Formats: sequence, C-alpha cells, structure tokens
Amino acid sequence: MLSNAQVKFITSLQVKKYRELHSRFIAEGSKLVLDFLGSAYHVDTIYAIPEWMRENQTLLATLQPNLQEVTPSELSRITGLATSSPVLAIVKIPDISDNTVNVNKGLTLVLDDIRDPGNLGTIIRIADWFGIRRIICSETTVDLYNPKVVQGTMGSIARVSVKYLPLVSFLSSIPADLPVYGTFLKGENIYKCNLQPDAIVIIGNESYGISDDVALFVTQRIFIPGNHTLDPSSSSAESLNAAVATAIVCSEFRRNLLSPPTGRLTNM
Amino acid sequence: MLSNAQVKFITSLQVKKYRELHSRFIAEGSKLVLDFLGSAYHVDTIYAIPEWMRENQTLLATLQPNLQEVTPSELSRITGLATSSPVLAIVKIPDISDNTVNVNKGLTLVLDDIRDPGNLGTIIRIADWFGIRRIICSETTVDLYNPKVVQGTMGSIARVSVKYLPLVSFLSSIPADLPVYGTFLKGENIYKCNLQPDAIVIIGNESYGISDDVALFVTQRIFIPGNHTLDPSSSSAESLNAAVATAIVCSEFRRNLLSPPTGRLTNM
Repeated sequence: MLSNAQVKFITSLQVKKYRELHSRFIAEGSKLVLDFLGSAYHVDTIYAIPEWMRENQTLLATLQPNLQEVTPSELSRITGLATSSPVLAIVKIPDISDNTVNVNKGLTLVLDDIRDPGNLGTIIRIADWFGIRRIICSETTVDLYNPKVVQGTMGSIARVSVKYLPLVSFLSSIPADLPVYGTFLKGENIYKCNLQPDAIVIIGNESYGISDDVALFVTQRIFIPGNHTLDPSSSSAESLNAAVATAIVCSEFRRNLLSPPTGRLTNM
Repeated sequence: MLSNAQVKFITSLQVKKYRELHSRFIAEGSKLVLDFLGSAYHVDTIYAIPEWMRENQTLLATLQPNLQEVTPSELSRITGLATSSPVLAIVKIPDISDNTVNVNKGLTLVLDDIRDPGNLGTIIRIADWFGIRRIICSETTVDLYNPKVVQGTMGSIARVSVKYLPLVSFLSSIPADLPVYGTFLKGENIYKCNLQPDAIVIIGNESYGISDDVALFVTQRIFIPGNHTLDPSSSSAESLNAAVATAIVCSEFRRNLLSPPTGRLTNM
C-alpha cells in the first residue's frame, strides 16, 4: 500500500525543481520501463500491478529492481497520464559531470530553445531512428526529464546522449572545419545541398527559429522548400513543426549516406 | 457577458457528439481565427477581449462577423486550452455532401485510422506545406474538428480538403494504373524508389500500421530505413511517429519533383 508520503514524493517529480532536488524522474508504461531496465539508467523503484509483475517475472527475477505492488487505483493517484498504465518507475537522473562532446564523427543535433516537451521527445525518437547519438540542448530547452518528454521518446531516451550546454561556448569549441548547418525559412534548398555526414545541425525554437547569437556559428543555412517555392502565388503553411523539420533534415542526411548522389563521395 | 447557456453550448463543442448535433466547432487563438475568417469557412461568432477587437478592427469592420466582447476570465470558462488565448471562434462545419475525389493529379494522402489528434493536426500542416490538397481519412480516424486537431493544424485546416470515407470502397474506385504507396516497416527503401508524382500514399495507424484490408490495395510498399538498416547489430527506435513518417515521405515526393534524379523524367 502506498503511503501519503510516497504519493507526495512521486507526484512531486512532475515538477523540475523536485526532480533536480531528488535526482529522480518518472517513467510510465510497460515498454518504457522495460527499456530503462535494459539500459544504463538506474531504475530506483517500480510500482506495478500484480499482472505486470507476473508477466515480467523472469526479467524481474534476473534484475531484482526494487518492486512495490500497487492496485490500479493507487496507480491512478501517482500517474501523470490521463489514463494510468500498469507500471510506473522512478529512475535516477544520471550524474553527468563530463561536458566534453566528441563531435568529429557523425551528426550532432543542436537544439536552440525547443520548448514543447512533445517536440523534444519526438526529436530524440527521430535521432534514435537515424542513429544520431548526440543531442546538445541550449539551457533554455525544455527539461529532458519532464514526464512528457520521457513518454514522447518511446524509450529512445535510453539510447541517445542528451546534454545541456551554453550553445555559444559549445559552438566556439568545435573544430573550425566542421560544417554547421542551420534550418531557416530561407537558405539553400536542402534537396540540392551537398550535406556532409560529419556535421552539426542546429534546430531553432518553435516560434523564433535559431537565435541571433547562435546563428553566427552557422556555416550553411538550409531550408525545406514549401509549396510556395514551386508556386509563389499559392498560400501554404507558414512553417513546419520543429520536430517535423528535424525529421526531414535527418532523413536528407541519411539518404545521402545510403544513396550518395552520383559523382559524389562520402567519407563513410 | 456570457450566459451560462452560452458557456454550456461552447464547452459542449469539445465533444464530437455535440459538434455533430450543432454542426459547429471551436477555433482558438488569433492566428487560427484570422485564418478561418480569410477562408471559405463560415465563422459563426467570435468571442474576444477588447484589445483583440481593437487590434483587428479594420478586418472586422470589413467582414462583420458576429462579435461578442468578453473578459479574460470569461474566456477562461470556455477555453479548451491550458491557457486561454484572447479570442475564440465558433465555426460552422461545412456541409460536404459531395464525396467524389479527383485523384488524377498530384498526391492524395490516405490516413488509415490515425487516432492521435496531434498527429492528424500535424499531418494536415505537413500536407499544406508540401502543397498536398487532398486527405482521405478512414472513418475510424480522429475527428477533424476535435479542438486538438484544429489547433494542431495551425490554420492549415482552412487550405486542405479532408474527407472521411470507407477506405476499401474509396480505393476500389480509383484508376487501376494509379500507384498506391503504403508505408511499412519493411518494403522498398524510399530513397531508392522511383516515386511517381501522381499517386496515393497510405499512412497507417500509430500502433498497428496499415490494416490488412487496406494493404491489399498497395501497389508498392515503401519504408524509411532506420539505423538498423546501416548497422544491423545496432538497436534503435522501433518505429517513427506517424506524422514524422508522413513528413519524410512527403519530403521525398517533393524532392523528386524539384530535383528529379538524373535520367528520370517526371510528368510535372
């Protein structure tokens, strides 16, 4: 049975201040909890209904996490979801004291002030799909351990390294010859760019795009041509959602690796 | 001043049953309301704070919609958003009795049971960006006039035709030589496909993909290669979000139009 103190502690983790205070965050849902159990993250305690415990008894017997059996109505007191799932885990926030980032090989995504938790979660899932293992977030980007971010990653959070750094000093520290692509509403047509596989890609804020001080580091402005590019007299959406733009950009890098344009060599 | 009956009526439109009963839906936020005012949709009544009325007085004097001035606290009683915006409009659901769809020219998106309102809204916004003017939804797809769909389209709903049809009979009625692409987790690598510009593209349900009876109409299965395609020993996300997959597929059709691969002709 859950004590009131436990309920208070768990629900407090919906708020960033308490996640930082306790170095813990919440993961809900069977797939997500199993992904964390199989990752480098330390799962502190699992609250689950008896059916979930039985279904996963072999794994639980091997890993021996802290378990507490709860009823569905107890879960509904601690869930952050509209409909509670059969399991909720408290996971330890890893202690990342090492802020060095090796950007030499492959793509590094840089997020300049992404505010929507759904967008950050989706971007992490996209990165994972395309094998992008590094994301650097501005310190104003929504917290990685916000429950909506964690849920939105669908488990990809366990496979992608996400660090929060002051972007200007981070971008000042990268090799001078590394291409830095930035997505803008005007720039070079992404379908015609010779995208380098070892590079930085900067994605801007949902409303304001890439901030001026970060834009100074961009060596190539790219854009995704909308319908008005084909037909300037037509009206169309003013912009794409930040996660959608990220998906299209990552896809373009990926297609270049898999199907390099004729006559062009890639170094992978 | 809003009457209790008005509040009850407006908030009832959060629910599909009452939207259908009254043939009305809700749009909130200045940009969205202005997009509807400038579209073929009939805006029934606008509830706004005095500042919004003043800012848009020229347009309102021209269009003369029904206006009712409200206070921010009244708006907070009728909003469906976490934070109410300065304006909320009641819009008439257009009477679409014509179920014919001309699929001969350009792309037609077919959504097989998209359930998440955020996904449908984002897909409509993507279609608008890429100049795709027709979306056919299965009758099990989330309601177009769900407030979260309307908000998610960011105004694109006013520019894209969305119809709900039984997919099997719709797909039975299309020309036999029209390519029907379907997104699957296995199929032909989308980056290597010779995508035809006049075609149907089917996007499946978030969890279950394209249903079996609809899949029978697919003439080419396509997939977006994930990291495991480059490196089979790696783990990566199991799937992409449905809206993200739609974005990448639409982008591939668009790049083929703008930069047709050498030696290949397009008919646009």
